[in-house]
Amino acid sequence: MSDQEMKIKAIGKVKSAYDKHDGTPIQANYETSNEASLLIDPEYREGLEGLAGFDRIYVICWLDRSKPYKLSVIPYLDDEAHGLFTTRAPSRPNPIGLSLVKILSVDVKEGIIRIEGIDILDNTPILDIKPYIPDFDVFPDSKSGWYEKAKGKRLKADNRFSK
Amino acid sequence: MSDQEMKIKAIGKVKSAYDKHDGTPIQANYETSNEASLLIDPEYREGLEGLAGFDRIYVICWLDRSKPYKLSVIPYLDDEAHGLFTTRAPSRPNPIGLSLVKILSVDVKEGIIRIEGIDILDNTPILDIKPYIPDFDVFPDSKSGWYEKAKGKRLKADNRFSK
Repeated sequence: MSDQEMKIKAIGKVKSAYDKHDGTPIQANYETSNEASLLIDPEYREGLEGLAGFDRIYVICWLDRSKPYKLSVIPYLDDEAHGLFTTRAPSRPNPIGLSLVKILSVDVKEGIIRIEGIDILDNTPILDIKPYIPDFDVFPDSKSGWYEKAKGKRLKADNRFSK
Repeated sequence: MSDQEMKIKAIGKVKSAYDKHDGTPIQANYETSNEASLLIDPEYREGLEGLAGFDRIYVICWLDRSKPYKLSVIPYLDDEAHGLFTTRAPSRPNPIGLSLVKILSVDVKEGIIRIEGIDILDNTPILDIKPYIPDFDVFPDSKSGWYEKAKGKRLKADNRFSK
């Protein structure tokens, strides 16, 4: 398959209080007091049927305000450089973001998913939503490399990955 | 941002024993005896530095052999229809797959990540790799809607979402 055939489109957009990286929570669960919404376009809303039965979803976004990637980066959470694919830095060969968020409510007809805690900028295009299912997704004892020493060093983003 | 600007490219491809959906494990952790590999293109390999310190990664793929989506689907795991975004069915507005897999070894120089258990077809384009970090990703008590009743009904895929 050639790259030309891999075309993506937004199915909606994020509505959040953040319009720049600086000061945005680094991870969705770092600031659960913030509310945000996912606004889903009319043609896709039927696909939300039943989502209110889930507590959490993965939100896959196109991080449109990230600067070009480098393969070795100092992530928000550490002071040392690490391989890009060991980080969740927003500047990536494909700037695809993965956020795990808690659902507060789902309005299928209006296409509004209210969520708790968001690490994504306002107006970011949404590409996909997938259910979080503990049987598939929970592995508490997984080693997490450099992060194990760095955890808690920093809670907010700055502009290091901004356009 | 217009859709035209959202261009993606493969950073590598999956090497797995499966070349059709029929018989493929539905989730990566449903068949951990299978080995597979992620082959990363030379220009991106430096980004794998340090990945061997992690147990698990999210692999984001372009599910190139999925047929066009419907918004109400009967997922592999159930006998009833559910909203597409409550399922991980491969036919989606953007056919982006999210697989959580266990790392067996990482060869940065050769660009080979050996993994345990895979639910992805051979030669599937890889778009991104992200580290699994329990502090961000583990929420064991999350409700999971229709899945809670359906779990265990079926372990292998069939061709319902195939081109």
